Amino acid sequence: MIKAAIFGASGYTGQELTRILSGHPEVKLVAVTSRRFAGQPVAEVFPSLNGLTALKYQNATSAQICNLCDIVFLALPHGVSMGIAPEFIRAGKKVIDLSADYRLRDLKTYETWYGKHSSAKLLKDAVYGIPELYRKKIGQAEFVANPGCYPTSIILGLAPALKKKLLDVSTIIADSASGVSGAGREPLTGSLFCEVDGGYKAYKVGKHRHLPEIEQELNALAGKKFAISFTPHLLPVKRGILSTIYAKMKKDVTLKALHSLYCAFYADEKFVRICPEGIYPNISSVCGSNYCDIGLAIDPRTKNIIIMAAIDNLIKGAAGQAVQNMNIICGFAEDAGLQIAPLYP
Amino acid sequence: MIKAAIFGASGYTGQELTRILSGHPEVKLVAVTSRRFAGQPVAEVFPSLNGLTALKYQNATSAQICNLCDIVFLALPHGVSMGIAPEFIRAGKKVIDLSADYRLRDLKTYETWYGKHSSAKLLKDAVYGIPELYRKKIGQAEFVANPGCYPTSIILGLAPALKKKLLDVSTIIADSASGVSGAGREPLTGSLFCEVDGGYKAYKVGKHRHLPEIEQELNALAGKKFAISFTPHLLPVKRGILSTIYAKMKKDVTLKALHSLYCAFYADEKFVRICPEGIYPNISSVCGSNYCDIGLAIDPRTKNIIIMAAIDNLIKGAAGQAVQNMNIICGFAEDAGLQIAPLYP
Amino acid sequence: MIKAAIFGASGYTGQELTRILSGHPEVKLVAVTSRRFAGQPVAEVFPSLNGLTALKYQNATSAQICNLCDIVFLALPHGVSMGIAPEFIRAGKKVIDLSADYRLRDLKTYETWYGKHSSAKLLKDAVYGIPELYRKKIGQAEFVANPGCYPTSIILGLAPALKKKLLDVSTIIADSASGVSGAGREPLTGSLFCEVDGGYKAYKVGKHRHLPEIEQELNALAGKKFAISFTPHLLPVKRGILSTIYAKMKKDVTLKALHSLYCAFYADEKFVRICPEGIYPNISSVCGSNYCDIGLAIDPRTKNIIIMAAIDNLIKGAAGQAVQNMNIICGFAEDAGLQIAPLYP
Amino acid sequence: MIKAAIFGASGYTGQELTRILSGHPEVKLVAVTSRRFAGQPVAEVFPSLNGLTALKYQNATSAQICNLCDIVFLALPHGVSMGIAPEFIRAGKKVIDLSADYRLRDLKTYETWYGKHSSAKLLKDAVYGIPELYRKKIGQAEFVANPGCYPTSIILGLAPALKKKLLDVSTIIADSASGVSGAGREPLTGSLFCEVDGGYKAYKVGKHRHLPEIEQELNALAGKKFAISFTPHLLPVKRGILSTIYAKMKKDVTLKALHSLYCAFYADEKFVRICPEGIYPNISSVCGSNYCDIGLAIDPRTKNIIIMAAIDNLIKGAAGQAVQNMNIICGFAEDAGLQIAPLYP
Repeated sequence: MIKAAIFGASGYTGQELTRILSGHPEVKLVAVTSRRFAGQPVAEVFPSLNGLTALKYQNATSAQICNLCDIVFLALPHGVSMGIAPEFIRAGKKVIDLSADYRLRDLKTYETWYGKHSSAKLLKDAVYGIPELYRKKIGQAEFVANPGCYPTSIILGLAPALKKKLLDVSTIIADSASGVSGAGREPLTGSLFCEVDGGYKAYKVGKHRHLPEIEQELNALAGKKFAISFTPHLLPVKRGILSTIYAKMKKDVTLKALHSLYCAFYADEKFVRICPEGIYPNISSVCGSNYCDIGLAIDPRTKNIIIMAAIDNLIKGAAGQAVQNMNIICGFAEDAGLQIAPLYP
Repeated sequence: MIKAAIFGASGYTGQELTRILSGHPEVKLVAVTSRRFAGQPVAEVFPSLNGLTALKYQNATSAQICNLCDIVFLALPHGVSMGIAPEFIRAGKKVIDLSADYRLRDLKTYETWYGKHSSAKLLKDAVYGIPELYRKKIGQAEFVANPGCYPTSIILGLAPALKKKLLDVSTIIADSASGVSGAGREPLTGSLFCEVDGGYKAYKVGKHRHLPEIEQELNALAGKKFAISFTPHLLPVKRGILSTIYAKMKKDVTLKALHSLYCAFYADEKFVRICPEGIYPNISSVCGSNYCDIGLAIDPRTKNIIIMAAIDNLIKGAAGQAVQNMNIICGFAEDAGLQIAPLYP
Repeated sequence: MIKAAIFGASGYTGQELTRILSGHPEVKLVAVTSRRFAGQPVAEVFPSLNGLTALKYQNATSAQICNLCDIVFLALPHGVSMGIAPEFIRAGKKVIDLSADYRLRDLKTYETWYGKHSSAKLLKDAVYGIPELYRKKIGQAEFVANPGCYPTSIILGLAPALKKKLLDVSTIIADSASGVSGAGREPLTGSLFCEVDGGYKAYKVGKHRHLPEIEQELNALAGKKFAISFTPHLLPVKRGILSTIYAKMKKDVTLKALHSLYCAFYADEKFVRICPEGIYPNISSVCGSNYCDIGLAIDPRTKNIIIMAAIDNLIKGAAGQAVQNMNIICGFAEDAGLQIAPLYP
Repeated sequence: MIKAAIFGASGYTGQELTRILSGHPEVKLVAVTSRRFAGQPVAEVFPSLNGLTALKYQNATSAQICNLCDIVFLALPHGVSMGIAPEFIRAGKKVIDLSADYRLRDLKTYETWYGKHSSAKLLKDAVYGIPELYRKKIGQAEFVANPGCYPTSIILGLAPALKKKLLDVSTIIADSASGVSGAGREPLTGSLFCEVDGGYKAYKVGKHRHLPEIEQELNALAGKKFAISFTPHLLPVKRGILSTIYAKMKKDVTLKALHSLYCAFYADEKFVRICPEGIYPNISSVCGSNYCDIGLAIDPRTKNIIIMAAIDNLIKGAAGQAVQNMNIICGFAEDAGLQIAPLYP
């Protein structure tokens, strides 16, 4: 049994990690930290976990946690992880960072979108943790930058088409919609039930901080630089992201051929499911699981390819993918602890 | 007081018409029909209307209704209206048809998307009822084809930019999301609470029957023929449509200039509100009202203009717009009976 | 036109008052205050009100507001109203206080449940504002203590049965469920979408501060002292309260007789609707309106009478009832500004 | 590996059984039946199960299924099970019936509430499947009548207090609220999203068919006959039941003593969790799991004990409890296949 700790465990992502790791056959969860809830049992803050973990939140230093664990998950806000990750890395611990701090390989891009970086030298050591694209590198890594939720859906959705050079990349548009848990558990007016229920709206149009991360990976897949349009929307649901992605075809392709390409590309993947032709993914069919469901359409009238990718933002978009990365790093079965069927209805 | 009747009044659109007309200062609602609920008081089928109308649903013929009213609203399924509208028109009654039967001016297009038309000769007599574009014609009409819900949001959203020829029309994409009431009150598995709540998915991608109607009007606005991509999604809300519309700019335009254009275009409109720069519309800010809220963004990195338009699909997208059209036809104040503030939260 | 002001106008109740008063035919809304949003237009904080009011929030003193208006609505937290109401009363203004500060006629009870009272002498001057019970007194008053939301539903639900002495009052149980807007617009963790959606739970069982207010009025109706059990629950909806009330019959009564009693008791009331026998009220049939819908059942096996009362907590449970009280005080039609049909679906 | 089949597998309960049994370590799911979807893969009807089962729905006879399996789950409507169960029993198969057909031990009561029974002789052979009360009998049984959802919550909630004779049983009131999945997947108007969302209402007050089942078990626990009041409500959530149960204490008991009693009573139970004193259960803390969470309160002013019990109606209220019963019958670990943490948020 490997010993794991979670730094910043009282947000929704931290809670989800706690839930998954508590049931993981190869992991012993030894510590969870939270300043706000220090001293309180996890099961008091999240009664759903009553009986599943006896841990209490600690207000511990990174040094203290470092001594306890083999692997640490950092579920901290952007800018905070970079103050903590280096110590764990120096101590030879495996680190999976769920913040954005080490996702961008280019320092300048990071600083344009996020501000100063205090441990920029580590940027080159972090592996971007999408297993379906970087499995080998992840397996050799000790330090994973776990992808953002929107990026996961868009990158998995576009990878086969980009690699096959099917798309006019200057026309790519990602129209995404996310459940509210993506905004975290901070008590913000905009996350209140009365502000969200019955509503639907775009936000940060063309300006969301996930943009550089998305473009970094899409550019790598296509082998050239380009920008995309990305519009996130807030959905009145707790979990789930659907990205509906548009791009003009470079040359005509049939739906059948496109579908075959995607099926082949993800043939060996446990967590990517390609919908049958004519069927489109629904976030409620992946929620509660680590799946990414992908659906495909072609609009012959406008020469657009339309790709729809659905994930649970807290699982494949955060905690589940982090555990998947841990499994690869540690040589466990890749779906260990992740064999959770979606909860439907 | 004008005497009005509603044919097919027990669906959600019919109910909404009943609700609005019951409180309209210039209208006496004299008859509502429904086969399914014939003989039952409206207030029994819709307890919300208890005390607001004493009418019972009738299973009446069009001839019977024709004798009772000056104006009739047809809230019937596509294909059914065309069997009834001609009789009212022959009798000299004003007709507002909320089905798709008379929205398309081109018979061939109609038959491609919907099938045979039994009163094709009337197509040329129907005025397409978006008051903001066709107010004059509507004022002279006796017969209005009330627009579809998705088309209303997309046409109002694009009109100023198209008229001003700002857009590369070959790149227009409308990514829309609708509340469940758009699917009507028929008991369909896909409209069940458990199938919809917590979900979000696209449907009829590139194949929705509102497409020819949208393109007819956009082409008219631009003065040339082109096709667009249109992807409807199902939202877990009761009411509301948000269309997020993308198109490449033909030449650079600033957000400030775009915003001014929209403000000027809709300056005299009571039911179109342009959001301040940087603010995007939320369906929950229009629901319960006849407003269309429009927000604007520019993505300089990709040269995309992004237009967001929000309406209540049952009001500005159906019953409210129908009443607005009636007000124009009858010479009432255009907002008579429609001075309903959005219900927020 | 009477000149009205709202003190504390940026919460949900204040917003609802703003919405209703902006459309009121006899009222000119002259000022709205908010510390948090001082200087911002109302329409910026609540885009739903765009076009309906041009007011800005002011951080004004009570003296400043006093000079501007004939009537003031205090939509302030408990304990804050009592610091402001006296000044308006001294200045001869009409005051409708939506806090709990002047609802309890007994000082000791107030201090047991809420703490010190700084203007206890005014308690005897405030009229408890349920028009269906105290219309005459309200008409002679200048100072109304507007009832709480739960109390309104429970008092209206029990009044006819208590007056008729049908119930064993020692057995009364009120099991109530409220939408989240009842908790206000403060950003509290417990009001977040993710904490509320999909959930249902009781809170403050037997300890809610509305208890003494409920009992004060029920005791007055029955003409004797007794306690009841009251269990509030949090519903995953924005608006609406349903109270399901149980009590043993003192002697056998038929449903028909009970139904007749309720119909007779509320025969002249515009805002109370008695459901037909066998039909039970749904909060979604009153939301958006000032109605209270009441349904009745009898369980002959256990001799229980079951009374269900539904209101919109922000309207009949707060802002709408406040306007109804204003209408009575000012001699307007009692439903002026309140002729809003419920928004269904 | 035991071979299991599900008869009537395309409703929500059948789907949930399919989901749980597909991941059960001791079970091979060999057949699922559905008339409506015969020939279709399960994963097409429920895309959430894509990759988790390769089965297709069959329109098979009971004889055909009988040959394939060791144990059968009947997830059929009331009245249908009784036509099928006898054949499986005669063939020596284990049977877990999720309908109401064999839950009532008294034929006359059955016929009063449900109508004719075609295999009344089997009533005495069926064991009522609440493991926490009848574990031993279940272990010796081959035929389990799986309890209803409301009854499970109410019986588990009241068992300790009734056994300890703490309550005046003539005063018991169960006020329950259920998610919409309890109404099944039939396309009924009352289960539509637009009819349910934003709503809350009581139904079948004092007349729900679960009443005789509840009273049978409560009477058995108390050792005497009595009736209770039971009011089900429809909640705008997919899953979850909360029962808030009221009864007068026979003699004074402290919350501390009551809490201890409940903790002791359920000390060895894996699936019953007693909330800490002062904490009340939320359905969202059990949904997705087989847990029943119980909270306790005492109202000293009225001498009422208030017990709140929360379950996931599809799991502990149906499919999960059925699997728990199977585990007991077959000698598997009682939580085999049921170690699923609640999905929160």
